[in-house]
Amino acid sequence: MVLNGHKQVVALAGGVGGAKLVYGLSKVLSPGDLTIIGNVGDDFVHYGLHISPDLDTVLYTLAEVANPITGWGLADDTRHMLDMLRRYGEDTWFGLGDHDLATHLLRTHWLGQGHTLTEITARLVLALGVAHPLLPVTDDLLATMVDTVEYGTLPFQEYFVRYRWQPAVERVWFQGADRARMTVEVASALANADMIIFCPSNPVLSIAPILAVPGIREALETRRASSIVVSPFVGGKAVKGPAAKLMNELGLEVSPRGVAQYYAGLVDGLVVDVSDRDLPLPDRVEILTTRTLMQSGADKVRLAKQILDWVGSRTA
Amino acid sequence: MVLNGHKQVVALAGGVGGAKLVYGLSKVLSPGDLTIIGNVGDDFVHYGLHISPDLDTVLYTLAEVANPITGWGLADDTRHMLDMLRRYGEDTWFGLGDHDLATHLLRTHWLGQGHTLTEITARLVLALGVAHPLLPVTDDLLATMVDTVEYGTLPFQEYFVRYRWQPAVERVWFQGADRARMTVEVASALANADMIIFCPSNPVLSIAPILAVPGIREALETRRASSIVVSPFVGGKAVKGPAAKLMNELGLEVSPRGVAQYYAGLVDGLVVDVSDRDLPLPDRVEILTTRTLMQSGADKVRLAKQILDWVGSRTA
Repeated sequence: MVLNGHKQVVALAGGVGGAKLVYGLSKVLSPGDLTIIGNVGDDFVHYGLHISPDLDTVLYTLAEVANPITGWGLADDTRHMLDMLRRYGEDTWFGLGDHDLATHLLRTHWLGQGHTLTEITARLVLALGVAHPLLPVTDDLLATMVDTVEYGTLPFQEYFVRYRWQPAVERVWFQGADRARMTVEVASALANADMIIFCPSNPVLSIAPILAVPGIREALETRRASSIVVSPFVGGKAVKGPAAKLMNELGLEVSPRGVAQYYAGLVDGLVVDVSDRDLPLPDRVEILTTRTLMQSGADKVRLAKQILDWVGSRTA
Repeated sequence: MVLNGHKQVVALAGGVGGAKLVYGLSKVLSPGDLTIIGNVGDDFVHYGLHISPDLDTVLYTLAEVANPITGWGLADDTRHMLDMLRRYGEDTWFGLGDHDLATHLLRTHWLGQGHTLTEITARLVLALGVAHPLLPVTDDLLATMVDTVEYGTLPFQEYFVRYRWQPAVERVWFQGADRARMTVEVASALANADMIIFCPSNPVLSIAPILAVPGIREALETRRASSIVVSPFVGGKAVKGPAAKLMNELGLEVSPRGVAQYYAGLVDGLVVDVSDRDLPLPDRVEILTTRTLMQSGADKVRLAKQILDWVGSRTA
């Protein structure tokens, strides 16, 4: 199989790291050839607003309006609403930009009118001029929960933002996962996929909630598509965020081999950063060693192209 | 009766004009001696946010954070959320400042938790350091509706903001008024009032919705208190907004006499601007002629003091 303009690529993406690779892929693949499946496990309701941080990060990145410093939120945003909330005596632990608020307000408003998260995401994507489809893995409630040593069970954003992922983690689980349904759009994308890419997102916090939706893991295990994962580690560490700390705490190996073990049965190939080539490698999957750190737009496009070429040549 | 520190004053106020006089009164009367009853007829839900424009105008004015140019909204506010809504293709006909959004977001959030508008207003007032009680006339739904020649029936904000009060009005009515209940706080304030002041607010749009709540008109008609109205007209015109245009359209006389007729049975005294002294005057109420235009803070305090002294001397 050689990938050409008519092969279907599905990317599973969490937040900042995933969005970067997805951006690269979107520059190489036409909208009809790439579908992005996004994580909703870190969605939460804050001051009545339905916030979907990972979907927004992908949306803003693809629309080229993301904050280039943080990777999430909007470029040149202000926090005047938050200043006023503080004046009202509120504990403003979760950052909400003023421009960013429009996204949450519209999403919440439309959800209240009975639209699905899938429909709403499509509307937001379209309105910001993004042509590639972005699909929440489910329209149902699915909430990532983190059992910590210090504070007991925390909803994801409390763990991640309020406590800056410092508490020691004993277990990560997904509230509502047993009743969540994969959307028809996601089912169709997976059924038609010729290639599946697990983006360099946090396996436990960003990809696991996608896999927790009934039917997703089975669809991936019985795939006809090629499937590869891009290791989220560079130099044995997470590029940002708690991926390495968390995998250590959960007894998982922070190495290319650990990543392959985590995705056992789900991937045929692993993309490893050059700086990790001396760490333990897996022996049952094919390996592409390259630079995976994506800083510039050119880095993202190069990595995306390299991955597509590699998978294309392997399966030719 | 001489008004002193232990007499109870109740002010009925709409938006900008009412807020100005209430500000003056708040500088002269201690928090225990002044209660403000606010209009909720122009409350509405916009993008899921519960917005109470008149209550907010009074709140911001008393807290000395109101926009000094418009009289409503917050000083030095920005509209970044609105800019982004527009980018999403929304018709942003209703101005929402970023700081201002915090008020709407908190109110909506707390309403969703089951708190009453009375409780929420008290919390907002307290948080901004305002000591004088501000009471919504009712916690129930009461929506000012405007029957227009051009567009049929419009919800108040559509008439007022979207169409900038240009449509010709045939009738103003109050949806939900028959089922709205006066709060116990409002009932108690009216029962204990020694003096009632109808602020220079739009009689038809700002005061009528207060009077439409069952029991309010009866409480005012059977009052033991002195009751006066400050004419909203200066030089036979409204200081701002549609008061004069609207009263004309509804066949009401735009003069001190017209104002007294509108409030027949509800007031014993009328405060008239010096520029209107040659217009038709009423003959059954006492009249104080003075400058009623409130531009500076000093204007507001002077007018408030003058009114209190006048009523005090009349009823001594």
